[in-house]
Amino acid sequence: MMYPNWLSQRAYLNGSRMALSFGEQQWTFAELDGKALEYAGKLSAAGVTKDSRVAFLSKSHPRFVMLMYACLHAGCEMVMLNERLSKAELAYQLEDSGADFAFVDDVLADKIDSPRKMLFSEIDKKEELPFMPEPEWHSDRTISIMYTSGTTGNPKGVRQTAENHFSSAVSSALNIGIAPDDVWLCTVPLFHISGFSILMRSLIYGMGVRLHPKFDAEQCAYELQAGRVTHMSVVGVTLERILAALKELDLEVSPRFKVMLAGGGPIPTNYIHRAGSYGISVLQTYGMTETSSQTTTLQPDDADRKAGSSGKPLFLYQVQIGDAKKAGDIGEIHIRGPQVTPGYIGKFADREVQQEGWLHTGDMGYLDEEGFLFVVDRRSDLIVSGGENIYPAEIEKTLLAHPAVREAGVCGMQSDEWGEVPVAFVVLNAPAKADELLAHCREQIASYKVPKHLRFVDALPRNASNKLLRRELKTWDW
Amino acid sequence: MMYPNWLSQRAYLNGSRMALSFGEQQWTFAELDGKALEYAGKLSAAGVTKDSRVAFLSKSHPRFVMLMYACLHAGCEMVMLNERLSKAELAYQLEDSGADFAFVDDVLADKIDSPRKMLFSEIDKKEELPFMPEPEWHSDRTISIMYTSGTTGNPKGVRQTAENHFSSAVSSALNIGIAPDDVWLCTVPLFHISGFSILMRSLIYGMGVRLHPKFDAEQCAYELQAGRVTHMSVVGVTLERILAALKELDLEVSPRFKVMLAGGGPIPTNYIHRAGSYGISVLQTYGMTETSSQTTTLQPDDADRKAGSSGKPLFLYQVQIGDAKKAGDIGEIHIRGPQVTPGYIGKFADREVQQEGWLHTGDMGYLDEEGFLFVVDRRSDLIVSGGENIYPAEIEKTLLAHPAVREAGVCGMQSDEWGEVPVAFVVLNAPAKADELLAHCREQIASYKVPKHLRFVDALPRNASNKLLRRELKTWDW
Repeated sequence: MMYPNWLSQRAYLNGSRMALSFGEQQWTFAELDGKALEYAGKLSAAGVTKDSRVAFLSKSHPRFVMLMYACLHAGCEMVMLNERLSKAELAYQLEDSGADFAFVDDVLADKIDSPRKMLFSEIDKKEELPFMPEPEWHSDRTISIMYTSGTTGNPKGVRQTAENHFSSAVSSALNIGIAPDDVWLCTVPLFHISGFSILMRSLIYGMGVRLHPKFDAEQCAYELQAGRVTHMSVVGVTLERILAALKELDLEVSPRFKVMLAGGGPIPTNYIHRAGSYGISVLQTYGMTETSSQTTTLQPDDADRKAGSSGKPLFLYQVQIGDAKKAGDIGEIHIRGPQVTPGYIGKFADREVQQEGWLHTGDMGYLDEEGFLFVVDRRSDLIVSGGENIYPAEIEKTLLAHPAVREAGVCGMQSDEWGEVPVAFVVLNAPAKADELLAHCREQIASYKVPKHLRFVDALPRNASNKLLRRELKTWDW
Repeated sequence: MMYPNWLSQRAYLNGSRMALSFGEQQWTFAELDGKALEYAGKLSAAGVTKDSRVAFLSKSHPRFVMLMYACLHAGCEMVMLNERLSKAELAYQLEDSGADFAFVDDVLADKIDSPRKMLFSEIDKKEELPFMPEPEWHSDRTISIMYTSGTTGNPKGVRQTAENHFSSAVSSALNIGIAPDDVWLCTVPLFHISGFSILMRSLIYGMGVRLHPKFDAEQCAYELQAGRVTHMSVVGVTLERILAALKELDLEVSPRFKVMLAGGGPIPTNYIHRAGSYGISVLQTYGMTETSSQTTTLQPDDADRKAGSSGKPLFLYQVQIGDAKKAGDIGEIHIRGPQVTPGYIGKFADREVQQEGWLHTGDMGYLDEEGFLFVVDRRSDLIVSGGENIYPAEIEKTLLAHPAVREAGVCGMQSDEWGEVPVAFVVLNAPAKADELLAHCREQIASYKVPKHLRFVDALPRNASNKLLRRELKTWDW
């Protein structure tokens, strides 16, 4: 099916409504669309066409939004690079995606060395060519591509189509409601599905976005008090910090504020209660890059009764447990719906992501008698640290690349601050110091992935087939 | 694409939420789903299968809703018959649709003579067979079929698919917003798209429906005061009566009430203002059976500035004017979007309803500089009388069937009560009395279609090609 161009349509239908605000600046939908069209003219001069694939590396600010919206108008695909990744990781994703351009925020210029690199300031200087936006978008059009690692440790570029984003936005609206004067506070990264989906909702709902350059608990507390925002996306650690800031600053939350969507694993029930005392409704969600964010949500009313659950699917989605015979049986979580990616790009382009229409997540879980989902083991022992997904296999691969390392095992350790942090167990085959190995990691992978602790051991726990038992590692002592 | 069965999904996700209330009775989504499953077992015993086409003739009450929901579970198609039609008209639609069953409300038993007739009381007596609902619905599935006349005077059965209804509900939500505790007051007929679409929204939004057996202005006024409903669908005449009742009874409208959707032609701006004084927001809409109700809406803020306009399209829809070169040019209104019917059934099954993806409505209009739609002439001089569409060609055909009538011309006349009423001009070829001709009409067509006045004339106004000029008739004297 065809959608009217979301940007043009919103500018036509609600041109004078607030679309984006940042600090003291703000833009209506008509103004933002105007900026996007200007940039589309400049991108056209740079050589971007409907068939281009464009990588972005940027911090959160309005110019980044305008450039992405220019790409929406142009009809090209956007590869969303994570600014926290190492140079080596970024180079891999740029290479794998075959992006024709790498548009880079000037402050991140050093992160990428590529002939395809073009700084935002260089785009600004381009002459604006006459440009006509695509009047309609096919629902199959790939809008964004985000890399996620999964079981292999090799990051895979996940396609997210217009239909993926549309059905995700609509399903969320059918769950929590929407109103024409909603404003979503965005302090999560725009290159993640958590942040990018806020922009998609903005266009689809005609909703304002209040953008912060980065998460700052005090700033958030003041926003909640001021009553200019109605929704916000958080993870456990940011929620806790906001609650602490509200208390510290002795602030109340405006009754205009409605809902927080909380991703990245279960939220302690005491956070939900503390939020409730401020009138904040926290909905826990379960989702992944392959499902354009939330697939299930747990309502605050069920938070106590169903502690640890990820709730029930959104209206258009279905969840089932592979091989489960009855409620309570644990198995692989399978997901079905229009929010599920059609597949990967690059090296993994041939891999079927759906099996008979169902996404096999690799996560293990069960559905209880009432149909509430409980995730008991994240895929490949996924570590969720401050909202970032960390795959142990990727860190292990990095450690094993060091000549002194014979075996490496990584798992998550509870952290009050981050939810979890990665820790490593290493078997050496030549003398080495922990600091040396960690320095090696810091060169290869993003700093949040570098193990917080590294311990040398004689052997790693393995099963009969010699498969590493990361769950057993978790019980080991520090 | 596939949808999860809307009924099963709502019962699973929001089983304890109010789904339907009628008088003092009410049903949650789980209860209503249970009733629908019971009836599905009985319909199964009656011989209804996934491949059946089922006609319904009923007044508005919960059993009718349950039976329709049973058909949704069964996966069959529903032909919605209008209880105000004459026996001859109903027989035509039953025949044309080839319905396998005609399920008839007992109080309307006399309206249909057919071996396929089965009264609701007879269904009740059936033994309930074991029944498994369809777990998923294809978006192309025809849910409902509604007859509409259009230019020819021959009623055509319009298919409305799951996607038509879904996109209509979602587009409306993206326009006016939704909240989990919304309740829609339904006093419009369930067999019309105006009422049927309320049921579809109920399932898709998880929204309660407050059902009245028929429109009663005082009852509506009390509902608005009581604050148990948030939305309502009206036409000009019912809106005016509600406003009069509110004044007469000296009632206030609860702040919980949000929006009225007003169909059936432009609403006088003084109604909008009077509604505004009660805090009622009235959105004027333009739509038709072929577009599953509203396609454009006019916001109350624009009602004065754009008096007479039908507003702008909903988010997923596009409107253009055939052959228009610039804003203000009048031409045929063309509509595009996922709410547009894929086509007709029966005698008109072969007729292409879309041309290159656009529905040619037959209505004439223009878009102004800001993109607001103005409808200047309804298709085939459509008369809209108290929310019912009346096609002059159909009444003319009926008059011409009388042996004394040589020529007949019908047009709409302004009516304070109904908006418009039909009036007829007749050229005789043999002596006859007006009463005699009107009695003839009463036998053939629904009473609301029978001309309110009939005048004998010597000739009708015609153009060079001898085409009847109904617009000129309108200027004629009574």
